[in-house]
Amino acid sequence: MLQPIGDRVIVKVKKEEEETVGGIVLASNAKQKPTEGEVVAVGNGLVTSEGKVLPMTVKEGDRVVYDKYSGTNVKYDGEEYLVLHEKDILAIVK
Amino acid sequence: MLQPIGDRVIVKVKKEEEETVGGIVLASNAKQKPTEGEVVAVGNGLVTSEGKVLPMTVKEGDRVVYDKYSGTNVKYDGEEYLVLHEKDILAIVK
Amino acid sequence: MLQPIGDRVIVKVKKEEEETVGGIVLASNAKQKPTEGEVVAVGNGLVTSEGKVLPMTVKEGDRVVYDKYSGTNVKYDGEEYLVLHEKDILAIVK
Amino acid sequence: MLQPIGDRVIVKVKKEEEETVGGIVLASNAKQKPTEGEVVAVGNGLVTSEGKVLPMTVKEGDRVVYDKYSGTNVKYDGEEYLVLHEKDILAIVK
Amino acid sequence: MLQPIGDRVIVKVKKEEEETVGGIVLASNAKQKPTEGEVVAVGNGLVTSEGKVLPMTVKEGDRVVYDKYSGTNVKYDGEEYLVLHEKDILAIVK
Amino acid sequence: MLQPIGDRVIVKVKKEEEETVGGIVLASNAKQKPTEGEVVAVGNGLVTSEGKVLPMTVKEGDRVVYDKYSGTNVKYDGEEYLVLHEKDILAIVK
Amino acid sequence: MLQPIGDRVIVKVKKEEEETVGGIVLASNAKQKPTEGEVVAVGNGLVTSEGKVLPMTVKEGDRVVYDKYSGTNVKYDGEEYLVLHEKDILAIVK
Repeated sequence: MLQPIGDRVIVKVKKEEEETVGGIVLASNAKQKPTEGEVVAVGNGLVTSEGKVLPMTVKEGDRVVYDKYSGTNVKYDGEEYLVLHEKDILAIVK
Repeated sequence: MLQPIGDRVIVKVKKEEEETVGGIVLASNAKQKPTEGEVVAVGNGLVTSEGKVLPMTVKEGDRVVYDKYSGTNVKYDGEEYLVLHEKDILAIVK
Repeated sequence: MLQPIGDRVIVKVKKEEEETVGGIVLASNAKQKPTEGEVVAVGNGLVTSEGKVLPMTVKEGDRVVYDKYSGTNVKYDGEEYLVLHEKDILAIVK
Repeated sequence: MLQPIGDRVIVKVKKEEEETVGGIVLASNAKQKPTEGEVVAVGNGLVTSEGKVLPMTVKEGDRVVYDKYSGTNVKYDGEEYLVLHEKDILAIVK
Repeated sequence: MLQPIGDRVIVKVKKEEEETVGGIVLASNAKQKPTEGEVVAVGNGLVTSEGKVLPMTVKEGDRVVYDKYSGTNVKYDGEEYLVLHEKDILAIVK
Repeated sequence: MLQPIGDRVIVKVKKEEEETVGGIVLASNAKQKPTEGEVVAVGNGLVTSEGKVLPMTVKEGDRVVYDKYSGTNVKYDGEEYLVLHEKDILAIVK
Repeated sequence: MLQPIGDRVIVKVKKEEEETVGGIVLASNAKQKPTEGEVVAVGNGLVTSEGKVLPMTVKEGDRVVYDKYSGTNVKYDGEEYLVLHEKDILAIVK
């Protein structure tokens, strides 16, 4: 298991649905890069310069939308994850 | 539904009115990119480094004007939205 | 009407006086871009990271001078406006 | 009259003395751009993020030296001025 | 022994497992650069601008995941280490 | 006399000793640019965002060493000076 | 003697051991630039924006490791030194 540091969030990226035309799978392109995923782990929160810990807004199990240029891809146990700062999450899907 | 994080605002972008010349729809160009829309969701407010939440100024239903280079485009449920930080909103249309 | 957000100011840009040579209107060039205008609306003031609102210095009706590279052009109701942060205003014309 | 905003200072730039060789005025070059002038107006001072106004050090009538890349040139009433932040003034000539 | 300064962490980088095809060792490439290692030393913590020391989250012996562009490589006693700020550690492997 | 503003220091740059080979003065090159000088004037100190004045460490008469890329050259009364922020002074020669 | 300002540290750079192949001294290259040295002088500590002096962690005589791109080279009394901010020191060799 990966335990993120600070205000980081680990997201399991939603698989892109394959687009098919008459049964033929189309190659994905940059515009279709997924920007939605499920939060699988959250850090304890950002430690401010006064040593205060700011609580996290997102929690495990949340589906979230993020900017496609955010975060760092990490491979762990054969799975691909995205590690993001909470501030790079745009919205929670309710 | 999308619930924005922090001081983010989700805006439904106003459709550009099609310009027609003699019934022919003209292609839009960069200069006519819409910069007005309706706020459909607002975050809870920016969390300061002291852990204080600053209340939002804009609210759901506000029509707002923003810089055309601001924000992140997000597609959700077949609709296009723009996710902006409140500080990137220039003015509220009253 | 446009209500600016935070420390923003909306300025109605002073029309450039046309330069004519023998009755022929000369094309304007970059050097003559106007940098003076009239304030038509002001925001409520900058909200500091402590949640304090700093009062505005300029007010509606002030004639102001600004750097020609500042602000965002906004078209509203067929008129051109410039939306500026108050800190980008150089001076008030008294 | 121009009333500068915040910690800005308006300086009337000292005319470059013309260099002549045998009565012929030489073209000025970048190295001889004036960096000295007389303060003609000062702002009320920088407003800090706590809403405190920091008093100005320079005052009207001071002769000041500044970096030649600082400030914004403003033309007003047919005269050329330089609008600078006080922190871009290097020294006062005593 | 190396004692890191401030919020720095010294990581012993996990050896890349050699990829072989039919017994032939393949050259590593940028994509396979290791991003996991074991913490061998931690600093006393970041000193804030108020002179407060913020305690460290990671500790000696933790296995950590980091961005492959983070940190500084240091060779000491014939071993290769990576010196990172704690904030550049993405997650602890539990 | 020049009175520096804030945390600035005015330094009289030490003349480079001419290198001669058999009596021929060699042209100076970038590597020999002087980085040592004598402090001839100091400002009153940096004004912090709380309006507090931080006292200066260097004083008139100190010989100081600075980075050759720091500061602004100023010519005054036929002499060349360097105006530096105190934080760009590396060390005092004792 | 050089007395560093603020949080600066003066380091006497460890001589690179010459690599020889069959008695022939090899030219050093960028990868072998030394990153270890002995602290010969330390400043009084960083002055924070509240005017507080933060004590130094390293002290005279410490052997330290630093990033090869940090600091400013200074020649004094025929010796080469490196002047670094303490925060650019990676670790103390114990």
